Amino acid sequence: MGKIKIGILGYGNLGKGVEEGLNRNPDMELLGIFTRRNPQDLKTKSPCYALDDLENFKDKLDVLIMCGGSKSDIPDQGPKMTRFFNTVDSFDKHGKIPEYFETMDQIAKDNKKVAVISTGWDPGLFSLNRLIGEAVLPEGKTYTFWGRGVSQGHSDAVRKVKGVKKAAQYTLPKEEMIKAIKAGQDPAYTGQTAHEREVFVVLAEGFDRDEVRKEIVNMPDYFLGYKTLVHFISDEEFERDHRGMPHGGKVIRQGITSKGHSASYQFELDLASNPEFTASVNIAYARACYRLAKNEEYGAKTVLDIAPGLLSMCSMEELRKRII
Amino acid sequence: MGKIKIGILGYGNLGKGVEEGLNRNPDMELLGIFTRRNPQDLKTKSPCYALDDLENFKDKLDVLIMCGGSKSDIPDQGPKMTRFFNTVDSFDKHGKIPEYFETMDQIAKDNKKVAVISTGWDPGLFSLNRLIGEAVLPEGKTYTFWGRGVSQGHSDAVRKVKGVKKAAQYTLPKEEMIKAIKAGQDPAYTGQTAHEREVFVVLAEGFDRDEVRKEIVNMPDYFLGYKTLVHFISDEEFERDHRGMPHGGKVIRQGITSKGHSASYQFELDLASNPEFTASVNIAYARACYRLAKNEEYGAKTVLDIAPGLLSMCSMEELRKRII
Repeated sequence: MGKIKIGILGYGNLGKGVEEGLNRNPDMELLGIFTRRNPQDLKTKSPCYALDDLENFKDKLDVLIMCGGSKSDIPDQGPKMTRFFNTVDSFDKHGKIPEYFETMDQIAKDNKKVAVISTGWDPGLFSLNRLIGEAVLPEGKTYTFWGRGVSQGHSDAVRKVKGVKKAAQYTLPKEEMIKAIKAGQDPAYTGQTAHEREVFVVLAEGFDRDEVRKEIVNMPDYFLGYKTLVHFISDEEFERDHRGMPHGGKVIRQGITSKGHSASYQFELDLASNPEFTASVNIAYARACYRLAKNEEYGAKTVLDIAPGLLSMCSMEELRKRII
Repeated sequence: MGKIKIGILGYGNLGKGVEEGLNRNPDMELLGIFTRRNPQDLKTKSPCYALDDLENFKDKLDVLIMCGGSKSDIPDQGPKMTRFFNTVDSFDKHGKIPEYFETMDQIAKDNKKVAVISTGWDPGLFSLNRLIGEAVLPEGKTYTFWGRGVSQGHSDAVRKVKGVKKAAQYTLPKEEMIKAIKAGQDPAYTGQTAHEREVFVVLAEGFDRDEVRKEIVNMPDYFLGYKTLVHFISDEEFERDHRGMPHGGKVIRQGITSKGHSASYQFELDLASNPEFTASVNIAYARACYRLAKNEEYGAKTVLDIAPGLLSMCSMEELRKRII
């Protein structure tokens, strides 16, 4: 049987993660990385092409994994690419997912393609666990905690503050709240009360720490209302300790199965590399995407629409024997 | 829209759990409990019928949840019932699942029924997580830990020892091994090395503690090779502290996404009532069973075959908005 032929669109952290992850999936083959940059400028071991060359791959790729950003890349590329390819993306603007789904669903159906949208770990595996937790414990409450991990969006925001040379922002879950939930209490959970923020900054020369700190902790949408700790560190320290992209978190469903009988459902991830793990999930869903397309089940799909067995390299027979 | 009409076959702990759990699933309706005992002897709030009456419900039930034991009830009832009903069971003899699947698949397809087999939490949600963990982290290792919780099979075995008046057996995961795994070590995991057993016994009059203890800890298949602690307690203490059926456990997939980048995936349950939670999972899969049958997707299904969205009372539109 032939291998599943994969293309990667976009060669940032996520695209690199997919390239790396494909080494661990022997049933797949990377046909090409497609970039808006000059392909000669990317030092990849894999074949690399300009975006315009993608049209020559229309009949060659089984699945195109779109690795651009959710802010502008995916909303633009998704509808275009799904006309020609089965696609996988990790579109993560939670509020816009229903609208994005409708758009992609129509185009995919019209063109007999499958578009797996919004996969990864959140949205993705966390969504799956929010769903299952709620379905098996209808009387209960669901909590999502993120971290400890680096938030790219928040790190970017800090880097835009005048006087900041380098910055990394860590999101931290409040451990005491997690304990309280598992003890069957119902603390006042909101994104703000459940998390703290920790920022590591390398100060640019000639700037004042207190001024910079004040500007960071009062930044609306990002830090205002959160407990935020700002540390000023040396450039060396930053390069040594804060270049990684760790992340993780947990989904907890705390409920009851009858009066007095509690049940606690928890899903947890602890990742040294956020983009590599997201890539790894995307690869598994690319396999499902390929199989759905083979089976002519066209349209947009989320993790909720996909039978978990389709994610595995192994046959259902083997899985029933070994995993059930 | 009408409610999903459910029947319960067997009124032990699991059957009682389904009856209780249906109170939390307003889209479902319990039509009847079916028992081999005299229906008048069961003190249920729900309508209760003799097993022979089941044939009168052929066109009335949407799904029959089979709540008997895996040793003899389910292997006998499954093939019979699936001729007439869409069924859900929690058949848990792991080694026999492939064969049971084949039998049920053929009968279900021949009779245009859906048979969801081997659901619950293990097999069931734990199987799901073993599968997904492996699919998203192909380079890694999967560990299952059970407990702290009461094992009915082991408790039964202890109760058969001469001199034992009452007994409860708890399975305990070795916490130090869990820590080692998450620290990226690879300890020598087997069922025996990963768990300890703790037994609470009320001694019958005239028997010797040391004799009874020796017989328990040396029992092959159940205790031999395990670290087993036996406590002798009073009847009062037993009634007060050991009448519950708590259980739980975790599935851990420990892997890497690239050299030096670890990723830890963990799913965990902590349940005050094992049978009530198993029942609660069965109810969610009964909903999926009903929908698959409506959709004419006949045959046997495991948790690996079922799109998670089918488990929820909510529409996919709502789930995309609220949960993804």
